[in-house]
Amino acid sequence: MKPLEVLQQNLHKRVLVEMKGGRSYRGVLDAYDQHLNLVLSTAEEVLGGQVTPHPGVTLVRGDSIVYISP
Amino acid sequence: MKPLEVLQQNLHKRVLVEMKGGRSYRGVLDAYDQHLNLVLSTAEEVLGGQVTPHPGVTLVRGDSIVYISP
Amino acid sequence: MKPLEVLQQNLHKRVLVEMKGGRSYRGVLDAYDQHLNLVLSTAEEVLGGQVTPHPGVTLVRGDSIVYISP
Amino acid sequence: MKPLEVLQQNLHKRVLVEMKGGRSYRGVLDAYDQHLNLVLSTAEEVLGGQVTPHPGVTLVRGDSIVYISP
Amino acid sequence: MKPLEVLQQNLHKRVLVEMKGGRSYRGVLDAYDQHLNLVLSTAEEVLGGQVTPHPGVTLVRGDSIVYISP
Amino acid sequence: MKPLEVLQQNLHKRVLVEMKGGRSYRGVLDAYDQHLNLVLSTAEEVLGGQVTPHPGVTLVRGDSIVYISP
Amino acid sequence: MKPLEVLQQNLHKRVLVEMKGGRSYRGVLDAYDQHLNLVLSTAEEVLGGQVTPHPGVTLVRGDSIVYISP
Repeated sequence: MKPLEVLQQNLHKRVLVEMKGGRSYRGVLDAYDQHLNLVLSTAEEVLGGQVTPHPGVTLVRGDSIVYISP
Repeated sequence: MKPLEVLQQNLHKRVLVEMKGGRSYRGVLDAYDQHLNLVLSTAEEVLGGQVTPHPGVTLVRGDSIVYISP
Repeated sequence: MKPLEVLQQNLHKRVLVEMKGGRSYRGVLDAYDQHLNLVLSTAEEVLGGQVTPHPGVTLVRGDSIVYISP
Repeated sequence: MKPLEVLQQNLHKRVLVEMKGGRSYRGVLDAYDQHLNLVLSTAEEVLGGQVTPHPGVTLVRGDSIVYISP
Repeated sequence: MKPLEVLQQNLHKRVLVEMKGGRSYRGVLDAYDQHLNLVLSTAEEVLGGQVTPHPGVTLVRGDSIVYISP
Repeated sequence: MKPLEVLQQNLHKRVLVEMKGGRSYRGVLDAYDQHLNLVLSTAEEVLGGQVTPHPGVTLVRGDSIVYISP
Repeated sequence: MKPLEVLQQNLHKRVLVEMKGGRSYRGVLDAYDQHLNLVLSTAEEVLGGQVTPHPGVTLVRGDSIVYISP
C-alpha cells in the first residue's frame, strides 16, 4: 500500500486535516492529488478554539498540511 | 475530480484566498496555473481586521496560499 | 543498505515519528513512500506533554518529519 | 488566460510588488520570468513606513514575492 | 572527491549530526542517500543539554540536517 | 529581456545585494548562475548598521537573496 | 566564470562559511558539489562568540549556507 491510497479509500468521507500553524479542517474529502492538495466540502475550520464553517468547497494547499486523519 | 478543477469551475467567480501570515483576499478568479498562482480582479485584502481594496487585478503567488474557497 | 529500507523492515511495526514543531506520533507503520509520507495506524500524538489517541489511520506528510525511530 | 499574462500585459507599466516580511516595491516592470523573478526600474521600496528610492533597476527574486498588482 | 564520499568513508562509524533547531545526534552511520537521509544506530539525542538514548536505529530526514561530522 | 540579463549587463560592476534576515552586500559582480548564486569581489557586508569588509571574493547563495540592485 | 568555480579555485584552501541562524565555520575546503554541500577539514565553528574546534572533517549541508568566502 502507498500512503495516498488512504486518501483514495476515504474519498467522499469525512477527514480531519491538521495544518502548519495550528489551523485544522474537518470536512468531506472530494478530491486530492499527488502534492496532497485537497478539496474538502462542508468543512469546518478550527483555529485557536474558534470554529468557522466553510460552506461549499475548500481547496487546501498540500504543502501546509501536517497530517490527514479519516 | 482533481483539486484544480475547483478552480476551473470557479473561473470568473468570487473566491476567498487565505494566505500564510494572516493575510486574505476576496476577489474574482480570472486565471490560475498548476502552481496555484492566481489572478484576482476587484479584490479586497484583509490583514489584521483592516480591509484594503485592490482595484484592477492582483497576481497572487501560489506558494503563499493556505486555502482557496469559492 | 539505503535509509528507506529501515521503513520496509518496520512495516506493520510500531514506530516513533518526531515532527518539526515539537509534535510526535507513535503508531504502527502501514505504508510509506519516497517522500517519507507515512501511514500510521492506532497512533498516539504527543504535543506539549498531552497525549491524543488517533483511532484508525493517520497520513503524515513527509516534509514535516525530523526522524523516525522503530 | 494564464497568471503570467498579467505580467506580460503590464510590461513597462508601474506595478506594486508585496514581499514576504513586510517589504514592498513600486516600480516599472521591465522584465519577468516563470519563477516570478522581476526587474523593476525607478522603484521605491517601502518598509515600516519608510520609503527608499531605488534609482536604476532592481532584480527582485520571485520566491520572496507574495503578490504583484498593476 | 565529492562531499557524500565522506559518508561512504564513515559507514559503520560513529558520527555527530547537528540538526536545525538545536537538536543533535551521535550514533553509528548505517546508511545514507543522496538527500542526506541517514540511518543511525545506538544513537544519543542531545537537545537543550538533555541526552536521550535512541536504542535500535533512527532514520533522520536529510533536510533538517545542518552538518555531519565523523 | 529576461531578469538575469540585468546581471549580465552588470558583470564587473558594483551591485547591492539585499539578503533575507537583514544582511546586505555591496561588491563587484564577478559571476552569477541561474539560481542567482553570485560571486562578489571587494564586498562590504552591512548587518545591523555594522559594515564588515570582505577582502577577496564572496560566493553568495542565491536562495537567501531578496533583491539585487546595480 | 560560473560561481562554483570560486570553490574549485579554493579547493584545499581555508574558507569562511556563514550559515543561516548565526553559525559560521572556518576550515579547509576538501570537497563541494552543485548543491553547495561542502566538506571542511580542521574547521572551527563560531556560534554566539564561542569557538568550537571540529577535528577531522565536517560535511556541511548546502541549503543552510548564506555565503562562502575564501
